Amino acid sequence: MHAPRALVQDSHAPLDPFGTARALDPRGGLPQPARRVDSDFSRLFPGEMLLAVETLNVDAASFRQMEDAARRAAGGAALSDEACDEAVARQVQATVLERGKQHNPVTGSGGMLLGRVLQLAPGRGEDVAAVGDRVATLVSLSLTPLRIDRVKAVRRASAQIDVDGEAVLFASGAYARLPSDMPERLALAVLDVAGAAPQVARLVERAGAAAQGRRTVVVVLGAGGKSGVLCAAEARRTGGDRVRVVGVERFAPYADDLRALGVCDAVAVADATDPVAVRSAVLEATSGVEADLVFSCVNVPDAEMSAILVTRDRGTAYFFAMSTSFTKAALGAEGVGKDIDLMIGNGFAHRHAEHSLAMMRAMPAIRALFERRYG
Amino acid sequence: MHAPRALVQDSHAPLDPFGTARALDPRGGLPQPARRVDSDFSRLFPGEMLLAVETLNVDAASFRQMEDAARRAAGGAALSDEACDEAVARQVQATVLERGKQHNPVTGSGGMLLGRVLQLAPGRGEDVAAVGDRVATLVSLSLTPLRIDRVKAVRRASAQIDVDGEAVLFASGAYARLPSDMPERLALAVLDVAGAAPQVARLVERAGAAAQGRRTVVVVLGAGGKSGVLCAAEARRTGGDRVRVVGVERFAPYADDLRALGVCDAVAVADATDPVAVRSAVLEATSGVEADLVFSCVNVPDAEMSAILVTRDRGTAYFFAMSTSFTKAALGAEGVGKDIDLMIGNGFAHRHAEHSLAMMRAMPAIRALFERRYG
Repeated sequence: MHAPRALVQDSHAPLDPFGTARALDPRGGLPQPARRVDSDFSRLFPGEMLLAVETLNVDAASFRQMEDAARRAAGGAALSDEACDEAVARQVQATVLERGKQHNPVTGSGGMLLGRVLQLAPGRGEDVAAVGDRVATLVSLSLTPLRIDRVKAVRRASAQIDVDGEAVLFASGAYARLPSDMPERLALAVLDVAGAAPQVARLVERAGAAAQGRRTVVVVLGAGGKSGVLCAAEARRTGGDRVRVVGVERFAPYADDLRALGVCDAVAVADATDPVAVRSAVLEATSGVEADLVFSCVNVPDAEMSAILVTRDRGTAYFFAMSTSFTKAALGAEGVGKDIDLMIGNGFAHRHAEHSLAMMRAMPAIRALFERRYG
Repeated sequence: MHAPRALVQDSHAPLDPFGTARALDPRGGLPQPARRVDSDFSRLFPGEMLLAVETLNVDAASFRQMEDAARRAAGGAALSDEACDEAVARQVQATVLERGKQHNPVTGSGGMLLGRVLQLAPGRGEDVAAVGDRVATLVSLSLTPLRIDRVKAVRRASAQIDVDGEAVLFASGAYARLPSDMPERLALAVLDVAGAAPQVARLVERAGAAAQGRRTVVVVLGAGGKSGVLCAAEARRTGGDRVRVVGVERFAPYADDLRALGVCDAVAVADATDPVAVRSAVLEATSGVEADLVFSCVNVPDAEMSAILVTRDRGTAYFFAMSTSFTKAALGAEGVGKDIDLMIGNGFAHRHAEHSLAMMRAMPAIRALFERRYG
């Protein structure tokens, strides 16, 4: 049984959705850059969701850094996997004790968590989960107040740590109710890139409205990867016959997977770091027509120019990959005189989790591919 | 008298506007990343504009690096300003000889140039300049084929180098005809940020069309600086009474200048690296209404969250500053659950130079401010 926590009166009204009341150092700032946040859950601030934590999905880069640190600390001595796991667990506990959140001080990254809703403080918007539901948080652990009571298991292969503990999600913090009709690993793989498909749907609709009967050309770079497949599939689902979807993928087996899904009009095998080759391949597939919309899902540096060079005048290049360089995109478009909209992929969109999970139900071939690859 | 150059037959049709025919290492790539480009101007490729070069406006970071290198090479010995200038000139000549372009191998940056049009090869779009006109290039020297015959003067204060030489601009390369009705320094200051105002005009129009009678709230961060003033002024000029313009500026004298221009409904003095303070200041100015459009012209790191926090649901945050971090913007918006469009400022827009120079003629108070500051 959960003992209901006391509610604090709201003294930070306009900013409370972002959790500034929990920032301790500096006080009253945003919780993500804060060196320390308040993880005293004996009372809740307005808008907070209290969670019983089951599993921390630690960011892969963060997990690897802690493993490396453990092995370095052992000096020349070989470290058993068990000893390494224990060392990682100790580092997580130390970080959470010191900072009030699993915000890796070296990598700066966090991860997300799985848990169960314990209490909903008043002052939240519309919630998709109720007390007792299992949820996955979709905001970084680097800003999520967390208390760990016990580490139960470290699962190295998936960078997961099972714990007993509690956490708080702010009113602005995105989360998803875990679906009962698909395996948890599949759901987590989809939630990891949940922002992609809703953004594609919006942009394809907007481009279609402006196209006046002409077919909208959509290019997806890195179209065989996880977010790329969802982008290509959503472009087709939203635009139907009114869009021409061209997928560009470097890795031949992924290109084959993509062809088998049947969502693209053409799939070209090309390296997104070679803009001249990508432009040739795309123009060949479209008989010389540049793209209205380009989605770059390529997680390597120097893919900016490929997206820019294939976008038509006043078209849009949308960058989902975190490896994108702001300056390379800005100066690259200027250098080739391309008057196009350049967009930073926003991982959040309203109801993005529900949207992307619904795609798995509506598109069984994609669900089967994802279960095979990520399940 | 200029002896007309021979024309090369087009063998790179779909890519020629970008100058791939001039890339030598690697051959056939884009000229910007190329280690070396072809600066043999005895013949021109289709779409090229041949220029007689008068002045190189070297990128400030590049100029400083060459000065530092010269002083380091002198060891402990004091280097006279003249000797330092000569050393910078030698470095520029060596770079241009080796790479075929003034692409500083250390900083990676270039600059732009002033010159006179000698010849226009067939295959260009509509040109705003004819043979004999003085022009400023608006694409980086880091991709502009250049030959230097003689260095005439080095002007340290403005990082300018007067030369005799020739250069080629590709069909995709932006440039502006230098106006005869304003001082060159004023024109160059405006051209440096020419992309800002046209983008503001477009976005304010689009937001106005969607607003259905409601006043569009426009926030400009760094509104007292060069691009910030142009953004605020253009928002007012395009939107008139239908927009509410809030300028945020940290530097008090710049905030005073901005107030005196009368283009903002409110000017707040706040530091853009403090998102909580900026949000409070903006919401106070708008009686609690978040912004439809935010333009960030703040050239310091960590200003992303201020722009994101004041943008309304489904509004747009537009980042002009090169100090913007792609990942901080993307993860920042996700972290606070803001479903907004995040845009990378594109320095190029059609007729952006003419647009911004015309603002100087239409808005004498801004012209006077710019002449005082940058003239």
